[in-house]
Amino acid sequence: MNSTTYTVVTLGSHSALQILKGAHDEGFPTLAVTNRDTESLYRSFAFVDEVISIDHYAEFMNLVPILEDRKVIIVPHGSFVAYLSLEDHKEMRVPYFGNKAILDWEASRELQRQWLSRAGLNLPRQFKTGAEIDRPVIVKLYGAQGGKGYLFVRDAADFEDRVNILGERDYILQEYIIGVPLYIHYFYSPLTGKLEIMSMDRRYETNVDSLGRIPSRAQEGMDIEPSYVVVGNSPLSLRESMLAEAYRMGENVVRVSKEICPPKGLFGAFCIETIITPDSQFYIMEISARIVAGTNLFIDGSPYSYLNYSEPMSTGRRIAREIKNALLSNALGEVLDDASVI
Amino acid sequence: MNSTTYTVVTLGSHSALQILKGAHDEGFPTLAVTNRDTESLYRSFAFVDEVISIDHYAEFMNLVPILEDRKVIIVPHGSFVAYLSLEDHKEMRVPYFGNKAILDWEASRELQRQWLSRAGLNLPRQFKTGAEIDRPVIVKLYGAQGGKGYLFVRDAADFEDRVNILGERDYILQEYIIGVPLYIHYFYSPLTGKLEIMSMDRRYETNVDSLGRIPSRAQEGMDIEPSYVVVGNSPLSLRESMLAEAYRMGENVVRVSKEICPPKGLFGAFCIETIITPDSQFYIMEISARIVAGTNLFIDGSPYSYLNYSEPMSTGRRIAREIKNALLSNALGEVLDDASVI
Amino acid sequence: MNSTTYTVVTLGSHSALQILKGAHDEGFPTLAVTNRDTESLYRSFAFVDEVISIDHYAEFMNLVPILEDRKVIIVPHGSFVAYLSLEDHKEMRVPYFGNKAILDWEASRELQRQWLSRAGLNLPRQFKTGAEIDRPVIVKLYGAQGGKGYLFVRDAADFEDRVNILGERDYILQEYIIGVPLYIHYFYSPLTGKLEIMSMDRRYETNVDSLGRIPSRAQEGMDIEPSYVVVGNSPLSLRESMLAEAYRMGENVVRVSKEICPPKGLFGAFCIETIITPDSQFYIMEISARIVAGTNLFIDGSPYSYLNYSEPMSTGRRIAREIKNALLSNALGEVLDDASVI
Repeated sequence: MNSTTYTVVTLGSHSALQILKGAHDEGFPTLAVTNRDTESLYRSFAFVDEVISIDHYAEFMNLVPILEDRKVIIVPHGSFVAYLSLEDHKEMRVPYFGNKAILDWEASRELQRQWLSRAGLNLPRQFKTGAEIDRPVIVKLYGAQGGKGYLFVRDAADFEDRVNILGERDYILQEYIIGVPLYIHYFYSPLTGKLEIMSMDRRYETNVDSLGRIPSRAQEGMDIEPSYVVVGNSPLSLRESMLAEAYRMGENVVRVSKEICPPKGLFGAFCIETIITPDSQFYIMEISARIVAGTNLFIDGSPYSYLNYSEPMSTGRRIAREIKNALLSNALGEVLDDASVI
Repeated sequence: MNSTTYTVVTLGSHSALQILKGAHDEGFPTLAVTNRDTESLYRSFAFVDEVISIDHYAEFMNLVPILEDRKVIIVPHGSFVAYLSLEDHKEMRVPYFGNKAILDWEASRELQRQWLSRAGLNLPRQFKTGAEIDRPVIVKLYGAQGGKGYLFVRDAADFEDRVNILGERDYILQEYIIGVPLYIHYFYSPLTGKLEIMSMDRRYETNVDSLGRIPSRAQEGMDIEPSYVVVGNSPLSLRESMLAEAYRMGENVVRVSKEICPPKGLFGAFCIETIITPDSQFYIMEISARIVAGTNLFIDGSPYSYLNYSEPMSTGRRIAREIKNALLSNALGEVLDDASVI
Repeated sequence: MNSTTYTVVTLGSHSALQILKGAHDEGFPTLAVTNRDTESLYRSFAFVDEVISIDHYAEFMNLVPILEDRKVIIVPHGSFVAYLSLEDHKEMRVPYFGNKAILDWEASRELQRQWLSRAGLNLPRQFKTGAEIDRPVIVKLYGAQGGKGYLFVRDAADFEDRVNILGERDYILQEYIIGVPLYIHYFYSPLTGKLEIMSMDRRYETNVDSLGRIPSRAQEGMDIEPSYVVVGNSPLSLRESMLAEAYRMGENVVRVSKEICPPKGLFGAFCIETIITPDSQFYIMEISARIVAGTNLFIDGSPYSYLNYSEPMSTGRRIAREIKNALLSNALGEVLDDASVI
């Protein structure tokens, strides 16, 4: 097949190993863009065919002319999006897996909220001012990455005490939902119109996931501030009686995305971050419109992806499979951002 | 083989995906009985050959005459048992994997306690009255499903304060054992007489598994009541020096089951729910006499099942393998409930 | 190959199942040394070719003359090391996978600290006396196994109150780092000079991993002492942007090991036990210079080992693969302790 002539490229971080291993397993040559710090790690893997090292990931745009001259497809991930501005993303003319138009809807907390509301999902309450707060809230700074810059606030008084550390920065005040987190990884195929549940996880956050190990008596003397910095992930499965609802939520998100970003909407990998309350309701904290790091737990396959595939199918490999299927059916444009198709 | 002429059927919930995928992988046609809510989910999987949709799972008995006319084998799971009464179970003449007689011993907390005691397992103390309570207890309502209706009570005074919310319902007062939960999934083969450890997990319960993420100082103001609603599972392995004991507990449970439900006793999949205390003792909270939802983590195999099989062997697939082995050795009756064998 | 003439032997505990299954999958005959308690467990697995049962694991040395007369290779693990004294280890002339010289550096907390410091790793502060304590500490008794004998102490006053239960025993006072635990499993090949990350986990400790499920209000009345007895493990993945640092830490540990135990240094499996703080720093609690029990989660492979192997590659199997590769290249001495090579 002519897929072998396309090289799959991504930035050396986030879920790059999975993306490149998956591409390799589906028959594509692979290219990792790394920095001095990560270069030797990515070089150590046999499935990485080529490494280009740059000083800082933010300088990726300097590579674009080179990539435009080659036959490559970029597979973006969370860090890729974080390092490039939305403008840079749109400017690139390199073939790009996914729909860049959805990035605006994801990046703005207000637009994202509109999108999820229209899809009929349960959302936590939001408060406009500190005075409105009538329950525990999470303060989320705009552009907070990986849980950095999240603040737990008990009540309006607690907020007043600490509002000064927020400074001039923008933030939202989101109801703290008491329940357990569960992140659902989906893949929507624009070629078949079918949605798949790939896997599930919860984040592993420091220090908040260690607090429970400190007896409450000891916590008091220590006066610990909880923080939500994501440093890893752990696997979960979902009660099967709730799986139909999880599937429906994914379908609704995709359906509405076609209305707000017509005609393609959201396709490929995405993730809905939920909190499940004791009445077995999903509350949606956020959507990620691309592959998330929680899928790294399942590079060798997951219990859910095994239902659809008789071989280890990571989300990274699923992406490469979709690109391959598109090439084989002469429909590559279906899986690339429109602006990136030459 | 003539196994292809039997269709494996179950209710679309709990661990049905695993059961049907496993049946498919062992060469059986599969039938999912779903409701309007779950129909599209089960139809989305290629290993589900046939779907019959009913309005409510409780109406399953209406299907029995149809199933009796076909060549099917029912594989029951937790929700299947929950939706049907014990009487309905016994009435059905459809071939049924497992021993229905053991259901009475599982359903009654007193009989279950007798069974586990005779097997020599450590059990938590039970209190007959609130006045007897001298340590933290879990109040378990009769027939509580999936952790709903569990209540944490600190002491006798706390019990008195809250006894009114229990109303007229029956409940037991079980010592709250301080230690970590571990659920051990077994499979006992009536064909070979051999016990296997298939996998292990812990439940993922809302809201109790999120409490530790809330600093104790903040918890105080919030006055949160812990709840134990099971919404998922997470994988575990057990210290290998404790594995021999885990294996022995499973053997003892099977041995005693043959005495209380002669001659077949308990066979197929079952699960012992333990709490492990700091002196490395297992305390047994409950036994489930069939496949449990925690096995859903291991649809693509587990570290433990891999010790016995060179391919991904879920508990669902293991059940289908047993049925197939029974058919191949002309001993199907060995793996079916006696009353269901025509 | 002549590897089939070597039998891989280990003690029936810790990670023996994985070691023996891995050896079997790589083509070696296997021998488990068990006691009366564990004998039937190990006999129940088809990949265990031979079982020798002794009364107590501490009597293993009595078997040494027998093993010296046979063509075997011992693969040690944590329990193996715990049951034998360092002197016994050195005395044995049976071929032994690994470098015994590193055991002295691992067994002594001071030498271990020197080693890790020279490798540039972040270490928690240590306090010489109770009076010096200015933050929460973990008191670790010398020779504490599996977290038994760890004590959480809030401050200097708390230490004074409880110093008497420590008695005459030696201990260290280690800063309690507030952050999440992550254990990284490495394999360093002396044949290729290449380091691999095999998998990751966190320990499952009783009762400390259950404290968070008890509301803080309830904890107060109960006055629970946290304990850190390891009874299992649960899987984790690490944020990919921190993986290069994890890899570098492993490389530095190996590099320094060659200086302190020349020329071979540390090779084969090892594990660095880290706490990750909210500023995404790794703090190193301890190093284990051999296969750790956390790898038992990955007997059927891990997301990380799948990056390097197209088949399920446990750490146990990786060890056997290294022995096989050594035999095939006529370099068995490279992977055995020097003193054990005849």
